[in-house]
Amino acid sequence: MKDEIQIGVLGLGVVGGGTVLALQQNADAIAKKVGARVVIKKVAVRDVSRARSVELPPGVLTDRVEDVLDDPDIDVVCELIGGVEPAHSYIMRALQNGKSVVTANKEMLAKAGHDLLEFAENNHLDFLFEGSVGGGIPIIHALKQSLAGNRITQIMGIVNGTTNYILSKMAREGADFDVVLKEAQAYGYAEADPTSDVEGFDAQYKTAILASIAFSSQVDPAQIPVEGITKVTRKDMQMADVLGYTVKLLGIGQCDNEGLRVRVHPALLAKGHPLASVNDVYNAIFVRADPVGDVMFYGRGAGSGPTGSAVLGDIIEICRNIVSGATGRLGCTCFNNQPLLCMSSLVTKYYVRLLTYDRPKVLASIASVFGDFDVSLESVDQRPQSSDRVDIVMLTHRTIEQNMVSALDVLGKLPTVIGVENCIRVQD
Amino acid sequence: MKDEIQIGVLGLGVVGGGTVLALQQNADAIAKKVGARVVIKKVAVRDVSRARSVELPPGVLTDRVEDVLDDPDIDVVCELIGGVEPAHSYIMRALQNGKSVVTANKEMLAKAGHDLLEFAENNHLDFLFEGSVGGGIPIIHALKQSLAGNRITQIMGIVNGTTNYILSKMAREGADFDVVLKEAQAYGYAEADPTSDVEGFDAQYKTAILASIAFSSQVDPAQIPVEGITKVTRKDMQMADVLGYTVKLLGIGQCDNEGLRVRVHPALLAKGHPLASVNDVYNAIFVRADPVGDVMFYGRGAGSGPTGSAVLGDIIEICRNIVSGATGRLGCTCFNNQPLLCMSSLVTKYYVRLLTYDRPKVLASIASVFGDFDVSLESVDQRPQSSDRVDIVMLTHRTIEQNMVSALDVLGKLPTVIGVENCIRVQD
Repeated sequence: MKDEIQIGVLGLGVVGGGTVLALQQNADAIAKKVGARVVIKKVAVRDVSRARSVELPPGVLTDRVEDVLDDPDIDVVCELIGGVEPAHSYIMRALQNGKSVVTANKEMLAKAGHDLLEFAENNHLDFLFEGSVGGGIPIIHALKQSLAGNRITQIMGIVNGTTNYILSKMAREGADFDVVLKEAQAYGYAEADPTSDVEGFDAQYKTAILASIAFSSQVDPAQIPVEGITKVTRKDMQMADVLGYTVKLLGIGQCDNEGLRVRVHPALLAKGHPLASVNDVYNAIFVRADPVGDVMFYGRGAGSGPTGSAVLGDIIEICRNIVSGATGRLGCTCFNNQPLLCMSSLVTKYYVRLLTYDRPKVLASIASVFGDFDVSLESVDQRPQSSDRVDIVMLTHRTIEQNMVSALDVLGKLPTVIGVENCIRVQD
Repeated sequence: MKDEIQIGVLGLGVVGGGTVLALQQNADAIAKKVGARVVIKKVAVRDVSRARSVELPPGVLTDRVEDVLDDPDIDVVCELIGGVEPAHSYIMRALQNGKSVVTANKEMLAKAGHDLLEFAENNHLDFLFEGSVGGGIPIIHALKQSLAGNRITQIMGIVNGTTNYILSKMAREGADFDVVLKEAQAYGYAEADPTSDVEGFDAQYKTAILASIAFSSQVDPAQIPVEGITKVTRKDMQMADVLGYTVKLLGIGQCDNEGLRVRVHPALLAKGHPLASVNDVYNAIFVRADPVGDVMFYGRGAGSGPTGSAVLGDIIEICRNIVSGATGRLGCTCFNNQPLLCMSSLVTKYYVRLLTYDRPKVLASIASVFGDFDVSLESVDQRPQSSDRVDIVMLTHRTIEQNMVSALDVLGKLPTVIGVENCIRVQD
């Protein structure tokens, strides 16, 4: 048995720093858990002269990735640089050199992870990625291991901390999106270019990863319909609250006999739902499965500590596998090939807000259009906005998305309707 | 590689039935995940003629435990009969016969599991018990694997569904304990003899298991101070609500430089705490650790489906280990030997409710006694109960338990105090 297992790290940013620090601080306990000391041999960074948040022994820092990828003493490589390339090539090279790999790189994994998973499995190597979704929340392992005996019918997550912070703050303070976004940027919760977060792309990658594992089917992130939160207004948050809901950006995967419905969009969620009280930068993933029923996993979805915890958990798992000669024991589980179903056939409830002129029979004409498309209304709330304008907020019963789209199209052209202000799906 | 892995089951009650059913229903997917078919060879029950909730092929049911324990073709034994003996002896015999074992038996595990864990580890066998705490919630694996790089400082769980159902219902409906208990018994959520649940013994076993793993130290359940929920009244629930809290039965483990504080008792929990909105028969376990921060795991804490899911997850893990030749890769992690600290040195906040006569200076005399014992008050709420009696409800600042006990002792003897009606710890 090895006395020492040597690790190489690519990247010493937020996650790399958190991983290295936790490994240093808990080294003795980790050695006892693994049965061998886990030692960082090399950390490759772009600029070795830059000040770092962690201290490393002399000679560990390097600006040559080959010092990590090609060193035969290194058994485990942690890729923590992000982005699709060169991360993907580095990981493939590490695997080809017989090293197991840990990554927290959601974008690379969702877009180009499959060949890495297959290569690792075929070569009895581990390729783990717990930190790619939900930061420190152990959702990937739970899906692959503890819940492996279940048939999962729904997985639904608040997987982006930035948007959850913004929506929570809008709900709590009655503030506008733009105002809260600027504040989030000032606190460092949102990036200078917030596109990937607020338009839902970050959630799209994570949802692709979750759905792939939950449904044992490869899910291409590019095929996942995505809507961000930029169109959610203060008014919608307030109306949702009045109706007993909160608005969350959800990554959703559902599986039925016809196939998979995977999507990312804001949704009204009843206040009693376990995800509804997940606020600020916290993430949570809700799983509905047979026979376990409903389970939920909650924690910080990003940052040096949480994601470092996940990466370190993966390192420890690989080291245990090395000690017991079992790397590659848990490979790719995408043995199904279930089709992704299109959004137009989705059946769900909707929240609709229309701005109309305050005229007689306006409501009747709206209800009539909905009726023409088989959309039936659960509740209607009419509120004056000015002397001759009213907001009409409706919740519908379950209806087919295609019908809803058609109805809104017709409604938008009615002379009494000034505009379809918003339409947000309601999630059970 | 084996094409087929044969399983033996002891007991076909609620959990056994759930496990077998899920294994049958998801057999194809499980075979793909494991790399071999998982087949139930024998199920030992006391009475083979009794009607069962699952169908088994002829010859599988037996009333001889040796058909399971001594069959060389059986690689994995699931002990689902409960109780300390003969469960412990059966498991030891299975291990001695070279079989890996799954159990959901919290009482046996907490009281007498250590030698089994050691024997399994020394003989490269798996002994897994995810179903012993929190039903289908994958908390054991999360602690042992994904969170293994963390230093856990606090673990706190709602781990008993019966008491959580009772407390949730008391809070929601303003009902009395006795009334709700009877209703819970009628629905089958509480047993005819509810002692183990309402007095906290069930939570005591589970807390011992959680604390042992979280702090890598063997924790003897008999050493865990336990208080049940029988003294929590409707009035306390209502006052807690007014003060911004909810009352939950918590299993708590904390670790600091001096040692461990492990205990089970009802506690006031601020409504914003993630555990506070866990209601009815749901369980949840909250973990505070460095570097992950706060994480929480939520789900149904008991029943055929949830616990069956956990047992099946363990079976699948063992089967994967068999396929990759790595059984025993994850053994006992109690390599520390941290002392359990006594309750009298606990520092926490308290909720105190006194019934007093409505006389001048009553409050002054009470405050004076608290002051004598260095207990300072955060808030005081005085409510008339009848023409000459008042309820005085106080929240204290953090204080040493020994001082609180002494203060209450003196207060109870004041001529103006009719009684110390309740004293409940407040948990941060």
